Amino acid sequence: MEFQGRDIISIEDFSRQEINHILDVSRSMEPLASKGSDMLKGKILATLFFEPSTRTRLSFETAMLKLGGSNIGFAEAEIASVKKGENLADTVRTVENYADAIALRHSLEGAAKLAAEFSKVPIINGGTGAEEHPTQAFIDLYTMRKEKGKIDGLKVALIGDLRYGRTVHSLAYALALYNIELYLVSPESLRMRKDVMQTIKNKIPVTEDANLESIIPHIDVLYVTRIQKERFPDAAEYAKVKGAYKIDLKTLKNAKKDLIILHPLPRVDEIAPEVDYTPQARYFQQVWNGIVVRMALLSLVLGAVK
Amino acid sequence: MEFQGRDIISIEDFSRQEINHILDVSRSMEPLASKGSDMLKGKILATLFFEPSTRTRLSFETAMLKLGGSNIGFAEAEIASVKKGENLADTVRTVENYADAIALRHSLEGAAKLAAEFSKVPIINGGTGAEEHPTQAFIDLYTMRKEKGKIDGLKVALIGDLRYGRTVHSLAYALALYNIELYLVSPESLRMRKDVMQTIKNKIPVTEDANLESIIPHIDVLYVTRIQKERFPDAAEYAKVKGAYKIDLKTLKNAKKDLIILHPLPRVDEIAPEVDYTPQARYFQQVWNGIVVRMALLSLVLGAVK
Amino acid sequence: MEFQGRDIISIEDFSRQEINHILDVSRSMEPLASKGSDMLKGKILATLFFEPSTRTRLSFETAMLKLGGSNIGFAEAEIASVKKGENLADTVRTVENYADAIALRHSLEGAAKLAAEFSKVPIINGGTGAEEHPTQAFIDLYTMRKEKGKIDGLKVALIGDLRYGRTVHSLAYALALYNIELYLVSPESLRMRKDVMQTIKNKIPVTEDANLESIIPHIDVLYVTRIQKERFPDAAEYAKVKGAYKIDLKTLKNAKKDLIILHPLPRVDEIAPEVDYTPQARYFQQVWNGIVVRMALLSLVLGAVK
Repeated sequence: MEFQGRDIISIEDFSRQEINHILDVSRSMEPLASKGSDMLKGKILATLFFEPSTRTRLSFETAMLKLGGSNIGFAEAEIASVKKGENLADTVRTVENYADAIALRHSLEGAAKLAAEFSKVPIINGGTGAEEHPTQAFIDLYTMRKEKGKIDGLKVALIGDLRYGRTVHSLAYALALYNIELYLVSPESLRMRKDVMQTIKNKIPVTEDANLESIIPHIDVLYVTRIQKERFPDAAEYAKVKGAYKIDLKTLKNAKKDLIILHPLPRVDEIAPEVDYTPQARYFQQVWNGIVVRMALLSLVLGAVK
Repeated sequence: MEFQGRDIISIEDFSRQEINHILDVSRSMEPLASKGSDMLKGKILATLFFEPSTRTRLSFETAMLKLGGSNIGFAEAEIASVKKGENLADTVRTVENYADAIALRHSLEGAAKLAAEFSKVPIINGGTGAEEHPTQAFIDLYTMRKEKGKIDGLKVALIGDLRYGRTVHSLAYALALYNIELYLVSPESLRMRKDVMQTIKNKIPVTEDANLESIIPHIDVLYVTRIQKERFPDAAEYAKVKGAYKIDLKTLKNAKKDLIILHPLPRVDEIAPEVDYTPQARYFQQVWNGIVVRMALLSLVLGAVK
Repeated sequence: MEFQGRDIISIEDFSRQEINHILDVSRSMEPLASKGSDMLKGKILATLFFEPSTRTRLSFETAMLKLGGSNIGFAEAEIASVKKGENLADTVRTVENYADAIALRHSLEGAAKLAAEFSKVPIINGGTGAEEHPTQAFIDLYTMRKEKGKIDGLKVALIGDLRYGRTVHSLAYALALYNIELYLVSPESLRMRKDVMQTIKNKIPVTEDANLESIIPHIDVLYVTRIQKERFPDAAEYAKVKGAYKIDLKTLKNAKKDLIILHPLPRVDEIAPEVDYTPQARYFQQVWNGIVVRMALLSLVLGAVK
């Protein structure tokens, strides 16, 4: 199990043993996230965000700062040389001279993989296309294990946009490595992508088209995602669907006391604000977990921890 | 008088005694601003600028760096999750995980107050709506005291856009805590807001619609603000008004030798460039003072000084 | 030869002896670029980029970080006070309070010179108008000397857009201080600017309208620049010209084994990707050299090295 110099492109590149190691290292980062560290002093992370993102970019930058490192980069394609027609391979072969690792967000699927082919320094996929967002999956797993003690044995429901939401694809792949039961709840038009289904349904029991009301008393983890308005050609259709997948206090009436509700954020209105104050809400704690997991990933690929 | 963990939302939240303490701490920051400090090593400031600003954002970031801290953030709403529909409360509950304090600029009045209600970490208002810009007011007061020895006893004229200029509102509230005489000079349509007038005119002598020519021989501080073209429906009206409030050498002919001219900047043409070279000009010195005052505020709310 | 406090505006301000000293200091920065340094601890560079640029901005920021310093700034004019109508002189007189040096990119020729007239801190020209890009010229010279042992005696060809490409103007001025032979290869409409020609042709042998095919067996350095589509009123004219100046394996068939190919990047398609893997390609190594040269310039003007 070697992490130094490794790219973080797809959750599928990691074994269960490797994921568990990442979660262990993440836990060891908790005190350093609070009191700081000089573990990566002198190291530079380049955050190349061709698509905007507050959360992921600031989370990576915070992780780097808390390890004593520094950041360079850009927050949108508009301010980059891309405007002059530079291709991604050239951008990467330029930036690898500046930085010890590169965190990349891009609208095109496969962008992180392409970047990794050209880069001498580790590429960390910060979300590409509608396909993958592996660091978010590590964060989701870390949150489940931190909150529930272990991942094996959990009953997990994924709800919302399972087709275009990149976080749920990475998460589904990862969960399939554990001994869990998976429930998928989504409108017909936003059902889980076929290629993901093929991979996971041979490994774990998956119930598609689950009805939230009937499963809510049994599940341990409710993972909610944003339904993106722009995916619906018809506004009326969107309005109908949207309402059906809104989590509020009524939804939670029959839920387990120790259910945890996760969301990769940003949220629009798929979770009512009243839910924020329930003991089940964990989506803001996930943000903190994002720092420790990214600290773990950065220190692993940069060789600061084994 | 406790500052650790405190939000800096409105100048009205501060007593005269507290403001004086902030000015004292600011003075003690002068040597650190020159030679640097590690007082906030390991601390992170998030600068969330939903409205663009060179000066305020760079000033906060410089203050943080000179205290040994680091910065994360964004410089415009376009590159933030706001595009995806996230509300300010969620943004704050996310970023409080990354940062030890948040400096916020926003186009909406009340945004800083709302942020403070949701945030575990101190919120510093970096300018919200047309209402308040409290850190600029501390800078203005600090500059007056540094240049004139004390604030009590001064005759201060505010000139320009007193209705929409957020800096003059905060400054007027603060000046009303001192024993000063205030003169307000503005076009009819840009007169000081009624709510501000109500508060201050019971505390200090205020002369509204002062004529600059007749008061210029008597005043100690001339505080000039930009008249924003976009406030005028009629271009001819703007042209007429603009000329009447332009400070040049002729304006200063009868001024006191030790008058000081302040301006929160950016300036357009309300102060002629020839004035820059007079002994009265202090608006670029104000920029330096902005660093030391923000160093004081950051180290106070983060508990590094009492 | 005094560098502390000096502006880097135009390559023409530097003697051959001074340039050689900068190249010597650059070489001494190579180990520090790898292992880091605290030479500029506590110092702040402001990168004021009124025009976007990935490479130059990130290169300056990386140089500063590797010397232990910090960065503030903006990556495009849109997010600056410029929107509010502030002039460059005021921006500079503001930012000089925050930073120990300012790296400036601007669309207007003369912007760096103007900035230097107003600034107390050193201004480093990071590319202004179509005129000058002096730090890139130092990088080009450094790369030639590093790769070929010396600059004197080299046969250098500049190819592409010699009229609007700001890097070739600075480079031509610098090369004219050395004992070299210069070949200029460009379409008629993009020939080297007359004022540059006047200066250089009295100092070194210059062959204009050189035919690449006939000179390629003799030259030591092939410096390629991007031909900007937007310079051509007629798309057909562009297409014709573009093809004539594309470097591919066929172009290199008769080249010297130890020819080096440089390009200031970004490239569009004037160098075929197949060339990247030839032993002659040096344009990505130039990016690394950009860091060490900018480390040298920053430590010189900030007085950290003599």
